[in-house]
Amino acid sequence: MCGVIGVFGHPEAANLAYLGLHALQHRGQESAGIVSSDGRQLHWVREMGHVGDIFTEERLRRLPGSSAIGHVRYSTTGDSSSKNAQPLAVNYAHGQVAVAHNGNLVDAANVRSRLEAKGSIFQGTSDTEILLHLLAHSQECDFSSRIADALRSVHGAYSLVFLSESSLVVVRDPLGIRPLSLGRHKKNGWVVASESCVFDLIEAEHIRDIDPGEMLVVDAERARSLRPFLPEEPRRCVFEWIYFARPDSIIAGQSVCAAREAMGRRLAIEHPVPADIAIAVPDSGTAAAIGYARASGIAFDQGLIRSHYIGRTFIEPAESIRHFGVKLKLSPVRDVLAGRRVVVVDDSIVRGTTSGKIIGMIRAAGAREVHLRISSPPTIGPCHYGIDTPDRSKLIASSHTVEEIRRFVGADSLGYLSLEGLHQSLASVLTSHEHRGLCDACFSNRYPIPLPVPMRSRQLRLLSV
Amino acid sequence: MCGVIGVFGHPEAANLAYLGLHALQHRGQESAGIVSSDGRQLHWVREMGHVGDIFTEERLRRLPGSSAIGHVRYSTTGDSSSKNAQPLAVNYAHGQVAVAHNGNLVDAANVRSRLEAKGSIFQGTSDTEILLHLLAHSQECDFSSRIADALRSVHGAYSLVFLSESSLVVVRDPLGIRPLSLGRHKKNGWVVASESCVFDLIEAEHIRDIDPGEMLVVDAERARSLRPFLPEEPRRCVFEWIYFARPDSIIAGQSVCAAREAMGRRLAIEHPVPADIAIAVPDSGTAAAIGYARASGIAFDQGLIRSHYIGRTFIEPAESIRHFGVKLKLSPVRDVLAGRRVVVVDDSIVRGTTSGKIIGMIRAAGAREVHLRISSPPTIGPCHYGIDTPDRSKLIASSHTVEEIRRFVGADSLGYLSLEGLHQSLASVLTSHEHRGLCDACFSNRYPIPLPVPMRSRQLRLLSV
Amino acid sequence: MCGVIGVFGHPEAANLAYLGLHALQHRGQESAGIVSSDGRQLHWVREMGHVGDIFTEERLRRLPGSSAIGHVRYSTTGDSSSKNAQPLAVNYAHGQVAVAHNGNLVDAANVRSRLEAKGSIFQGTSDTEILLHLLAHSQECDFSSRIADALRSVHGAYSLVFLSESSLVVVRDPLGIRPLSLGRHKKNGWVVASESCVFDLIEAEHIRDIDPGEMLVVDAERARSLRPFLPEEPRRCVFEWIYFARPDSIIAGQSVCAAREAMGRRLAIEHPVPADIAIAVPDSGTAAAIGYARASGIAFDQGLIRSHYIGRTFIEPAESIRHFGVKLKLSPVRDVLAGRRVVVVDDSIVRGTTSGKIIGMIRAAGAREVHLRISSPPTIGPCHYGIDTPDRSKLIASSHTVEEIRRFVGADSLGYLSLEGLHQSLASVLTSHEHRGLCDACFSNRYPIPLPVPMRSRQLRLLSV
Amino acid sequence: MCGVIGVFGHPEAANLAYLGLHALQHRGQESAGIVSSDGRQLHWVREMGHVGDIFTEERLRRLPGSSAIGHVRYSTTGDSSSKNAQPLAVNYAHGQVAVAHNGNLVDAANVRSRLEAKGSIFQGTSDTEILLHLLAHSQECDFSSRIADALRSVHGAYSLVFLSESSLVVVRDPLGIRPLSLGRHKKNGWVVASESCVFDLIEAEHIRDIDPGEMLVVDAERARSLRPFLPEEPRRCVFEWIYFARPDSIIAGQSVCAAREAMGRRLAIEHPVPADIAIAVPDSGTAAAIGYARASGIAFDQGLIRSHYIGRTFIEPAESIRHFGVKLKLSPVRDVLAGRRVVVVDDSIVRGTTSGKIIGMIRAAGAREVHLRISSPPTIGPCHYGIDTPDRSKLIASSHTVEEIRRFVGADSLGYLSLEGLHQSLASVLTSHEHRGLCDACFSNRYPIPLPVPMRSRQLRLLSV
Repeated sequence: MCGVIGVFGHPEAANLAYLGLHALQHRGQESAGIVSSDGRQLHWVREMGHVGDIFTEERLRRLPGSSAIGHVRYSTTGDSSSKNAQPLAVNYAHGQVAVAHNGNLVDAANVRSRLEAKGSIFQGTSDTEILLHLLAHSQECDFSSRIADALRSVHGAYSLVFLSESSLVVVRDPLGIRPLSLGRHKKNGWVVASESCVFDLIEAEHIRDIDPGEMLVVDAERARSLRPFLPEEPRRCVFEWIYFARPDSIIAGQSVCAAREAMGRRLAIEHPVPADIAIAVPDSGTAAAIGYARASGIAFDQGLIRSHYIGRTFIEPAESIRHFGVKLKLSPVRDVLAGRRVVVVDDSIVRGTTSGKIIGMIRAAGAREVHLRISSPPTIGPCHYGIDTPDRSKLIASSHTVEEIRRFVGADSLGYLSLEGLHQSLASVLTSHEHRGLCDACFSNRYPIPLPVPMRSRQLRLLSV
Repeated sequence: MCGVIGVFGHPEAANLAYLGLHALQHRGQESAGIVSSDGRQLHWVREMGHVGDIFTEERLRRLPGSSAIGHVRYSTTGDSSSKNAQPLAVNYAHGQVAVAHNGNLVDAANVRSRLEAKGSIFQGTSDTEILLHLLAHSQECDFSSRIADALRSVHGAYSLVFLSESSLVVVRDPLGIRPLSLGRHKKNGWVVASESCVFDLIEAEHIRDIDPGEMLVVDAERARSLRPFLPEEPRRCVFEWIYFARPDSIIAGQSVCAAREAMGRRLAIEHPVPADIAIAVPDSGTAAAIGYARASGIAFDQGLIRSHYIGRTFIEPAESIRHFGVKLKLSPVRDVLAGRRVVVVDDSIVRGTTSGKIIGMIRAAGAREVHLRISSPPTIGPCHYGIDTPDRSKLIASSHTVEEIRRFVGADSLGYLSLEGLHQSLASVLTSHEHRGLCDACFSNRYPIPLPVPMRSRQLRLLSV
Repeated sequence: MCGVIGVFGHPEAANLAYLGLHALQHRGQESAGIVSSDGRQLHWVREMGHVGDIFTEERLRRLPGSSAIGHVRYSTTGDSSSKNAQPLAVNYAHGQVAVAHNGNLVDAANVRSRLEAKGSIFQGTSDTEILLHLLAHSQECDFSSRIADALRSVHGAYSLVFLSESSLVVVRDPLGIRPLSLGRHKKNGWVVASESCVFDLIEAEHIRDIDPGEMLVVDAERARSLRPFLPEEPRRCVFEWIYFARPDSIIAGQSVCAAREAMGRRLAIEHPVPADIAIAVPDSGTAAAIGYARASGIAFDQGLIRSHYIGRTFIEPAESIRHFGVKLKLSPVRDVLAGRRVVVVDDSIVRGTTSGKIIGMIRAAGAREVHLRISSPPTIGPCHYGIDTPDRSKLIASSHTVEEIRRFVGADSLGYLSLEGLHQSLASVLTSHEHRGLCDACFSNRYPIPLPVPMRSRQLRLLSV
Repeated sequence: MCGVIGVFGHPEAANLAYLGLHALQHRGQESAGIVSSDGRQLHWVREMGHVGDIFTEERLRRLPGSSAIGHVRYSTTGDSSSKNAQPLAVNYAHGQVAVAHNGNLVDAANVRSRLEAKGSIFQGTSDTEILLHLLAHSQECDFSSRIADALRSVHGAYSLVFLSESSLVVVRDPLGIRPLSLGRHKKNGWVVASESCVFDLIEAEHIRDIDPGEMLVVDAERARSLRPFLPEEPRRCVFEWIYFARPDSIIAGQSVCAAREAMGRRLAIEHPVPADIAIAVPDSGTAAAIGYARASGIAFDQGLIRSHYIGRTFIEPAESIRHFGVKLKLSPVRDVLAGRRVVVVDDSIVRGTTSGKIIGMIRAAGAREVHLRISSPPTIGPCHYGIDTPDRSKLIASSHTVEEIRRFVGADSLGYLSLEGLHQSLASVLTSHEHRGLCDACFSNRYPIPLPVPMRSRQLRLLSV
């Protein structure tokens, strides 16, 4: 997963982008970058690491100008390289262009092969680089038309921000799979960001979402909204509400926090259990756990606390210690748990190993019973649209029954929210007609964009510093 | 504030110390260090920064041996220097000795002047360095006797771990102001740590607290408990339960989490208010907020969320943004707060500025009313025993009435837990006779250890890297 | 200026490349990099900085395989960016390819414009990137044919090493402007390098130069020598012998050290002067100064010593000190200079400012007379073939007479080696027919490759770490 | 070996100290540091590494004030620790004091034991720390008297600079073993430095040497010269002229360069040999080689060149390469050496291994004969006064005849300068009566300061960053 931001028309554009990336840090901790434009040329900083570690005062000073785009990238398996850090920035016939991308192009391999056959060369392995080649090959005569031209050649999920020397172009794919929000800074300029939580931080006003299929073109004269694609039924990612987005964000007019609480309430109705306390796996499970507690009448309590100091480069010196990684991140509160019948609410189960460790910790802290409740349906399929779920073979629910999973994780009972329950929970908090089209492929195997043949595996291995 | 750890008799002593320091990181983020002994000599790593950033695999390899002590130090104003990082380690007539200290010696300046008059030289400005001089000057013929001799010359709060080539000595001051817990590793060896949360992480068993006035001497043959001081009535720091300790720690047999919940319950009785939701200032206020919600019947909710990615070196590029620092750490959840009457529970008010910013954020998110509840009495005096509270003149409650503070922070109502309520809350969860003697000087101005004349201000300014 | 190395068929290919780059460090101190191939894919490390600082043990371990190419790059004005560091490495239709380049393509701007018009995108501003695009666009069906195809589209100076997963291809431009030598490792494999001094260090045997216009293709089966270009009269750069190459290198069968000594001898004949001692501006002037001393009978002495500790990132804290930069690099030996009539021999004068500072230092050390002798003709034109001379307008000899220059630098007399004398000096040490064609454009304005219109100035400014 | 500098009364004191340390870098590459005083307190930066790498602009800004002292330290075997980096700086009864030391106290172990018996604690293992303890124990009532008092308790070689908040005190031991020079800045203030080459760089005037046994006390009012010790016959280190000092320095009024040339001339008379060229092992052997060439009539040439880019952290990836370390530092010039009878002049032979490698390189480059000439007598004893020679057992000349050494290093002939020849060479360039007393203990075993019993070996191992 990734997060993007774009700023246009603010004298401290790179500083706002930097602050916005802080608010999007939960969407990607592998690398971060900002490209700014001073009107004549682009300036660029990008690095492996966290936003707070990468951007020193000196580096921010190297990013002058009143427009900027930024990106944070998630650490995926096996291709964590500085070459794939974004925003990408290149020179081409019409000047300079930079791009930051959240999403995934499903036909990247085929398009790339076609481009290579025509003589294109590639620096990294990301699908985003393809867009720059398509853009450069376009015969259209203005920047936004070239972008539209390029995007009509690919399929997949994309929330994109493009920056040229003089304009910012923002696009969301026709299905609107990944979120993208539009804000206006109280003092100056436009801001777009993956999530609306950015606007609160930088004191911008949240205007609305960028619509599925919308292209927004901003330059010194004006901001124009275009519709360069054929209209389609939207398919917003349901997992953003379940897990990915920050609880204080608003997606499609709907509060993430409220959606989660509604899921927790529904979960309590679908899977009640006599218990003394309801606890969350913090932080993503907290809102659902509060909802579960309220609907069930079971007391909510803080049975697990999360460390604020575990960074990405943790060393594991003592392999003998059980549940090691989880233990550094989560600590059980013995006094809350001991002797109690505990309902623990989490957002999802992927491989099952972490859930097993957490239940082990809760039992070791003295819990009498541990009932696991999951605020989403069983995850049975991978995401091809930008979330880094493992292969289907590693998703425990793709090949095991709920009872088998319960035994695997060691819970006294296990209940998942039903797919129907998920949709009803979301419907209960929807504020308008526009929020009906959702992508739930990871729970239903109904993939809204068909997949081409698998990508080839040959890749340039780039060694970062 | 600081945290200490000591390990003896485990083949991976430095690794356990390193893990333990992770669990104590909340007690100090300025610097960290570990000294280990391989039986013949001491090995040493210490640095400014967080535990996770300082200790690389290579540095941990440079700390061989089966005993080790470690330290984390809080960033205090004006004397944040690598020279004051601990553990300190020196050579003296009887070999080598290292020490790590949590607490504060109130007569450090006078003792230091006496030592300087006799020709002693000092590297840094910490009170701990004095102990090494006194130890080296002692005429006693064994290690623990020299330590006892040194400590009988000073007054103040101290939880100390000393390491020589062949033994570990652990001491807690006669009043037991700072906490110190004893554990036994399930596989090998002894562990002592400022808080019991360390034991859960490294899979040691929590045996008991080190008693006020107790000295524990551990070497290859045995572990002995000594009582080198005249017995006194204990004065355990009440603020550890209110704010400082981690909720999953046990101090004096009493769960920190349970104590906080009891304070919240009592607060609800003392200061009820009609409201729609009760929220916490996370994380320290969470347990008290849950207690308040339960006792009052007001629904607990997650109205503020805390960022996990804000490190210590944050740059503030945009001064115009209001409540900037607080905003990066805490985010209001608009959907939870908008249109609601909100009770917000925090552990204490120091200067009042942060509380004011938080209330401003909650109001900006649309709250209809904001009622601030503090789970401790007004903080009217500084701590001279190891907590880095500012001067009395900067403590808003030392010179303002509750009503004045309410207006300053902009709350609709403000209620502090009474001193009597605080003691009753703690009494309600006490499990034995030994937990009666508490230090509440910061709320009562009753200081259990009298203060000598102020320290001289001349100091060597040491510039770190 | 730059230096390149290629290794094929040695189990420690990257290690040999690393050592070789040490021996080529004088050819470029801005950045360095190595790409290795393990037979299936390329591995890559490149960075701003010196060879010794960039390559840690860990990074060398990340470069497995039995073939490798390496590059060092000189710090030029205004475009010192990590994006331009080499070797470049990309993916294209036929797999992966990396390239390292010493030289300059004179028609880079035009070729680049043509490529951009066809939709190519560019990461940096170097001419070398163009070669990769041309290579990828070639319709030829094998690696070396694609390279030849690409090179037939450009003009300029190039000593190139290309690496694919399975082969090494080495090319020198038809005029042979930049040097390139072929060696064979005593144990295993082939080595090519910009200068033969590499072979001494890594215990390879110096076989011969790569011929002007030669392409050497090495793969697991064999090494083939091809002649893909029309034959031309060679034009080897005369400045390599004068200044750039290391004195222990052999170029075109001719020792650099011997060539310099011959120049110094000839200079003594052309510009004799009564003096007490002859000294060099170390290190490049030393061999010529020895030659001058021998031919004139004036005693050679060490009147200036060079510091070994001045790196690239020197801070200048005291602007008031005269001749500051030069003083840190060179120190006059007062005892040698005081009261003496001094002949000081240097290789060339560019702007004249450094020469003026050096003469000022020698006078300040007490020299009675200072006679400057330059072992090359006046530098009147810039190099367009890879040496970073400034614009013609900044070359003092392009607009001033020798007498004007003498007054500017403050010498008592000034003598340059004549162009005829330069050629005769080189002829005197030539060992075969093949060394006759030389490029002396910077002294004669006779440029062997005509220049197209100036390059466009629009460039992407890339900010390195 | 180490180098020291002191500056008083210049508004950019730390900047001058920084520049001066650059000029002293050859005296120590392990660590460097500067302490400055702003009149009220001391400021401090010290680190492992080279001067140019340690002092960034930001760090220099942290060293305000008009007085400063600095130190560079040589990398000795086994005790290379940041704890021993200098200047040392401490607090004591009379304020703050810092010290930088070149030399060695021979009775450090005994004095340290006496101090430890009285209760002193030690941070590191350097002898210099003892001086601060003695100073702090002194009952004298002013700064310089306390320093004199402390120094009267120890024996050994010392050139010292002390800095308090308000004054600079400079002392040289009664025998004057290590050099120390006094200069005056052309604009403001006093400068003292280990070598006079510092003055040339920072544009100070070289006044004279600090006399053996002299103490110079500089404060805001005046500079006073004191003689706190009983007068003794001086014993200046002869090895400074042979090897250690920079050729452009003046010691005891005598040019180092001229002394070396005289040694080379004398060596030619004592050990003539028919040969074609005379070459130096650069840089320390260059002046002697020039002298040898002149006296013998054999042509001087540049047969070995020295790399400017080999730093301290070189990685040796290919162990199979012969003479590896030497090869990276020195390169033979084949064209100069091949077929020639070569006299190679070096300053000394320690273990013999490096000499053997150099001779091997010269032969491999084709030399017909290799005659080694050493511009000092056989090194038969270690230095106890500050030079890091190995134990006597590792000095090849302590247990082997000249003929045995010749065979070991593989030379065709070997000649050392005689002890008498050394003294006559120095006498020939002496300019006054004061330069007669020399320490030649490493050649004669006549140690001017008797040694006490060996130091104890117990040491605190300090792990640097």
